[in-house]
Amino acid sequence: MDLAVSPHVNDLVQRTREFVRLEVLPSEDHFGGVAQGEPWRRSLQEAARRCGVFGPHLPHCYAGAGLGFADRAPVFEEAGYSLFGALAINAAAPDEGNQHLLGHVANDAQREQYLTPLAHGETRSAFAMTEPAPGAGSDPRALRTAAARVPGGWRIDGLKHFITGADGAAFTIVMARTSGASGDAGGATMFLVDAGNPGMIVTRHVPTMDKSMIGGHCEVRFTNCLVADSAVLGEVDQGFRYAGVRLGPARMTHCMRWLGAARRAHEVAVNYAAEREAFGARLANLGMTQQMIADSEIDLAAARGLILRSSWEIDQGMESNDSTSIAKTFVAEAIGRIVDRAVQICGGQGVSEDLPVARIYRETRPFRIYDGPSEAHRWAIARRATKRIVSQVAAERP
Amino acid sequence: MDLAVSPHVNDLVQRTREFVRLEVLPSEDHFGGVAQGEPWRRSLQEAARRCGVFGPHLPHCYAGAGLGFADRAPVFEEAGYSLFGALAINAAAPDEGNQHLLGHVANDAQREQYLTPLAHGETRSAFAMTEPAPGAGSDPRALRTAAARVPGGWRIDGLKHFITGADGAAFTIVMARTSGASGDAGGATMFLVDAGNPGMIVTRHVPTMDKSMIGGHCEVRFTNCLVADSAVLGEVDQGFRYAGVRLGPARMTHCMRWLGAARRAHEVAVNYAAEREAFGARLANLGMTQQMIADSEIDLAAARGLILRSSWEIDQGMESNDSTSIAKTFVAEAIGRIVDRAVQICGGQGVSEDLPVARIYRETRPFRIYDGPSEAHRWAIARRATKRIVSQVAAERP
Amino acid sequence: MDLAVSPHVNDLVQRTREFVRLEVLPSEDHFGGVAQGEPWRRSLQEAARRCGVFGPHLPHCYAGAGLGFADRAPVFEEAGYSLFGALAINAAAPDEGNQHLLGHVANDAQREQYLTPLAHGETRSAFAMTEPAPGAGSDPRALRTAAARVPGGWRIDGLKHFITGADGAAFTIVMARTSGASGDAGGATMFLVDAGNPGMIVTRHVPTMDKSMIGGHCEVRFTNCLVADSAVLGEVDQGFRYAGVRLGPARMTHCMRWLGAARRAHEVAVNYAAEREAFGARLANLGMTQQMIADSEIDLAAARGLILRSSWEIDQGMESNDSTSIAKTFVAEAIGRIVDRAVQICGGQGVSEDLPVARIYRETRPFRIYDGPSEAHRWAIARRATKRIVSQVAAERP
Amino acid sequence: MDLAVSPHVNDLVQRTREFVRLEVLPSEDHFGGVAQGEPWRRSLQEAARRCGVFGPHLPHCYAGAGLGFADRAPVFEEAGYSLFGALAINAAAPDEGNQHLLGHVANDAQREQYLTPLAHGETRSAFAMTEPAPGAGSDPRALRTAAARVPGGWRIDGLKHFITGADGAAFTIVMARTSGASGDAGGATMFLVDAGNPGMIVTRHVPTMDKSMIGGHCEVRFTNCLVADSAVLGEVDQGFRYAGVRLGPARMTHCMRWLGAARRAHEVAVNYAAEREAFGARLANLGMTQQMIADSEIDLAAARGLILRSSWEIDQGMESNDSTSIAKTFVAEAIGRIVDRAVQICGGQGVSEDLPVARIYRETRPFRIYDGPSEAHRWAIARRATKRIVSQVAAERP
Repeated sequence: MDLAVSPHVNDLVQRTREFVRLEVLPSEDHFGGVAQGEPWRRSLQEAARRCGVFGPHLPHCYAGAGLGFADRAPVFEEAGYSLFGALAINAAAPDEGNQHLLGHVANDAQREQYLTPLAHGETRSAFAMTEPAPGAGSDPRALRTAAARVPGGWRIDGLKHFITGADGAAFTIVMARTSGASGDAGGATMFLVDAGNPGMIVTRHVPTMDKSMIGGHCEVRFTNCLVADSAVLGEVDQGFRYAGVRLGPARMTHCMRWLGAARRAHEVAVNYAAEREAFGARLANLGMTQQMIADSEIDLAAARGLILRSSWEIDQGMESNDSTSIAKTFVAEAIGRIVDRAVQICGGQGVSEDLPVARIYRETRPFRIYDGPSEAHRWAIARRATKRIVSQVAAERP
Repeated sequence: MDLAVSPHVNDLVQRTREFVRLEVLPSEDHFGGVAQGEPWRRSLQEAARRCGVFGPHLPHCYAGAGLGFADRAPVFEEAGYSLFGALAINAAAPDEGNQHLLGHVANDAQREQYLTPLAHGETRSAFAMTEPAPGAGSDPRALRTAAARVPGGWRIDGLKHFITGADGAAFTIVMARTSGASGDAGGATMFLVDAGNPGMIVTRHVPTMDKSMIGGHCEVRFTNCLVADSAVLGEVDQGFRYAGVRLGPARMTHCMRWLGAARRAHEVAVNYAAEREAFGARLANLGMTQQMIADSEIDLAAARGLILRSSWEIDQGMESNDSTSIAKTFVAEAIGRIVDRAVQICGGQGVSEDLPVARIYRETRPFRIYDGPSEAHRWAIARRATKRIVSQVAAERP
Repeated sequence: MDLAVSPHVNDLVQRTREFVRLEVLPSEDHFGGVAQGEPWRRSLQEAARRCGVFGPHLPHCYAGAGLGFADRAPVFEEAGYSLFGALAINAAAPDEGNQHLLGHVANDAQREQYLTPLAHGETRSAFAMTEPAPGAGSDPRALRTAAARVPGGWRIDGLKHFITGADGAAFTIVMARTSGASGDAGGATMFLVDAGNPGMIVTRHVPTMDKSMIGGHCEVRFTNCLVADSAVLGEVDQGFRYAGVRLGPARMTHCMRWLGAARRAHEVAVNYAAEREAFGARLANLGMTQQMIADSEIDLAAARGLILRSSWEIDQGMESNDSTSIAKTFVAEAIGRIVDRAVQICGGQGVSEDLPVARIYRETRPFRIYDGPSEAHRWAIARRATKRIVSQVAAERP
Repeated sequence: MDLAVSPHVNDLVQRTREFVRLEVLPSEDHFGGVAQGEPWRRSLQEAARRCGVFGPHLPHCYAGAGLGFADRAPVFEEAGYSLFGALAINAAAPDEGNQHLLGHVANDAQREQYLTPLAHGETRSAFAMTEPAPGAGSDPRALRTAAARVPGGWRIDGLKHFITGADGAAFTIVMARTSGASGDAGGATMFLVDAGNPGMIVTRHVPTMDKSMIGGHCEVRFTNCLVADSAVLGEVDQGFRYAGVRLGPARMTHCMRWLGAARRAHEVAVNYAAEREAFGARLANLGMTQQMIADSEIDLAAARGLILRSSWEIDQGMESNDSTSIAKTFVAEAIGRIVDRAVQICGGQGVSEDLPVARIYRETRPFRIYDGPSEAHRWAIARRATKRIVSQVAAERP
């Protein structure tokens, strides 16, 4: 049993921390946390490379630091301290999850064509899974976008929405049904669709409360979208399985990043409370403020413990759906509480853009919904727990 | 004991409800809940007059319906169903509180000059109390803006912020210290400062998460701002007492209005849940969704009960600080919970602007902070309760 | 709209308050809140009669004060201030609910035989509805106890549990199925079974955490239990309807009584906090304690508002299932929170029997379960709300 | 980074689990969780020795398994699955904390006289710190029990209460002030007082809601209690420092044990929910029940993560007051929530003694109070966090 962070990871944590403060926060504050265009992205990533903090999670062959999940947790938390930090080190959603997925599933040609430039920050990518009702939402099996066999390839038709980063992505990994019907547990295939394919159109940016994701959350329509056989990622009909490969880890890295943002809100609020007087005392010395501060400290510590557990299980190759569901649910809700308390502590300043907490409030609320809403995770957690406990009790009954 | 709503009030409730749905919601949805300019305000109010729902709270002499606080509760809730509804019926903050204050404190000349056009919707107004730290915030006694005697009048100097509606207001009621020092319990005076006074400048709009208040939340600087003796509202040094006259009722009407907005978010979410399928069932039939729906129904009912109690006490002329503190704290937090649940139920739609819930989420968060943050109210509630209970226990000790 | 308590009710409230403090609390504290036997009950009730506070809810014909539900709310809250107060004024469960039921449903002979002595405190009674799984629990329609026609009467067979007060009751109102099968919505009949009927046996007292109910919570077995036709209460097969008559009002009077107990715990804790020092300050001046005190004040006020609304609706003869479900759920949970905070404020004393709060903690926990667990009420509230909102939205769609 | 439990620890976990189920739970259920006398304790410990699970935390020299804190966490959780499990393996409070303290502070003679028989289960012990107000409670510095120098030793005078296990303890470690005055941060000394010392009298058992601690929670009066110099544990005036040695670890082992009890309540409830039908479905398939089950799973996982972090820090010799405060606060409250949900899921059975959950509810409530109430921990957590964050922010300000 060893919880020590190794010195080289710790060093990367510290350097990422400094990098974010010096190079990224000024940009976030300048743009009010609203994502900008490609030149801006490239200059952030250039700075990260210059500071030696680019790609902590990427394999060495892509000039990354090759960290496993347990080791990247504290690094990603530091990156997430700024809303733009993960982007700067090329570890933002959805690219980071796609890097992971391609690393596991892509063939050599696909790696060279898609993963290499993505890993080097030359391109961005998207992952097109969710659909408007009654399509794939909390329940991926409701998938309705379909791919039909055509000579030499496939024709994809369907509508996706909330596709983060689709506008401007060099390629989009599209989940489409190749067999079975909406509601079936299998029958999905992943396709790599290049930007510029005339059958794939970004029909609009869904206007959402968060503003920090480059490329926005898009509605993407596939109409007679033709792709070659070589566009199939992995094997036909194995899409749900691959989605599982991406899902748990992507949940965890989301947790790591957003936890950093929540911690920033918390630290801003604590510092505010330490400077501000009310009713003849420092705000930070009033019991109700102390309760909020302590509760956020507890939430941060508990969140880190759950992230570590899940990350370590992923690193061990353990089946970790349960622990990632538990961690994601707790962490997303803890982040919501932490940021809400920060807003409350800062009072009028907390709802204004003069401090970053209002911005973090707006950015983090959706996390209780995407990557599976808390309710869907709780449903899965309860079902697994019931099954496990009932069989244990039965086995141990004297 | 009679909780029945009288028929004429009920009639006004129904007409306000229809008015809001037909005339106001389209404007709110069109502008995404962002307040527009004067012509827009006037056209909304014109529609309200046409529909006979303008000024339910205003005295008959201003063509209002003359409702007391208990009676206006359900009317204001219906108006608040749209973020622009209260403005349309001329019952929005801060005008509605100023109307109340002027009705109690202004002399005849001031009534004619300020209240009459305000009551008829010809003008807007502002109320300038809060100041940047270390000035008047949660604790009004920290007041630092000062008014000094000059021949024939006063000179006001100081800085205010979060002054809602100041930009475009025909006049601003300014709270300034005329005796004592920052921290003293007395010594404040209210002044009526006309728009165009060269000593009063709106230095900026504080950028906040909410967008629905006409005239914004402004920073206002008073520099050598000269006003005549006739600008004194009520008597010199009685400002804190008058603020008390405005405070409790203004809290309650805020509660009424925002409760309507929260109810809209709830109803949108319930309707969404009734139409949407997930995991093979209507969302509205899943237990965790039902729990959220039921909790919001409970919150709405409890909020109404507390508003009614406080409003009735105000109508009776009872000293009701305690009951308005209790009601404000509960209602502001209940609204936060209700709207948060609505966001959660609507999933991805809940954080997008395709539904109104994200907008209501953004607009209602500040209410837990202004009109006294929950923590300041709890402090006051606890102190009063302790005093009351300790003396009761002492008195009844055998 | 009038929330004023009439002078004669207020007078009864004050006298009940004094009575409880002088005559009942000493007995509660002496016996540690554990119910004693018949002589004890009779002496408490004798004292209540002497003090003129017996039977505030009973019709004048039974020497009661004839108060409606809205008026009895504050009286019952004062009675409930002691765990034995309601018993003393003959308003304890299940007798009070049975008095109400018999008043509505019993014929003249039954009134004379059962209601008259019950109202005068000469007897106690029980109400036998709930059954072990898979019988009637949260869902009364699962009723399995059955009554079969025999010449001149009925034969009842089945098993009931958690039958409060059954041991020592002069009669038990038994709910039994006379048509249909377990799960059907109708087909139940109520029977009046006299103590001593050889077919009805109290098989055990279910040992529960609460100890204040006279006669305990019993398991009662009906085996070949023969009753005459005259034992039918109301009409055959109308039992579920009559249960509804009893249900809503009984929920509300439970809320009133337990709210009084919660208030006692709160007052004891506040008084303790006002006397006790920690970390160089009175406990009552520490912010986290103040937060607990304020939250309990808010809970008490909100609970009273909901009870008043439901009680008034019952008095008006309105169909009030929804409002009693809402009130019961909120109030039972609010009581839980209030008492838990009281325990916490009192620290080590709070978990000891040296103060009454630990006792109140133990007595009130079950209330979130009986009279319908919170979950069953939320399910019903959500279903009604969804139906109501969906049809409103449909009706108002332009 | 390695979270794997080593095989020999895992083996001990499994054997402890089996031991508790086969040998301890029957005793707990038989006695309703109420602690019995010495023969009972000895027979439980005899069984533990027979099964090879006695003293997992004890050094090898006492025939223990010598586990560190991180390793003992899962073992103690399994022991705590029964309210009597920790006692059986000689790891119950206060003996386990005293073993730890004596191991660190006692001299050779004291070890032989006190620690050896205690470690072998031949004796029990007590730790006398807390005093009635205005003495040492949440704030130990308020210590009032005093020890005065007498020829060849000391005379102790004072009153202690909530002294767990004092009745029947072979010796009591008594904290007394040897210099300074009540409120001072230093000046305490620890004394070993033998049973039978005529100056130490157990004046009563404080009647508390929990019943599982052998020897009860006692009030102990020291009157002219004479002890020799050899009774001083460690050095004079170093008592507060030694208390710190005991404090953090003792908090953590409390957390481990009670978490096991909470898990039992959870598992009983889940199993109940899986067997019980309501409203036409298994209770475990209803969404609101699933929410409770999932929340308890999340609480268990988060609690384990925090315990592991603190335990590992203790093992590393790191100053871990902050992490034990965080862990204790979260875990004690999580246990409260878990057990409360278990009660709720089990309905009427949940408040009866027919299932163990009501018993666990009663036993675990005090844990939010002793070992520092949540409020005192939050105060300390907030103060440390504020100090840490303010200095970080200052250091990193560009």
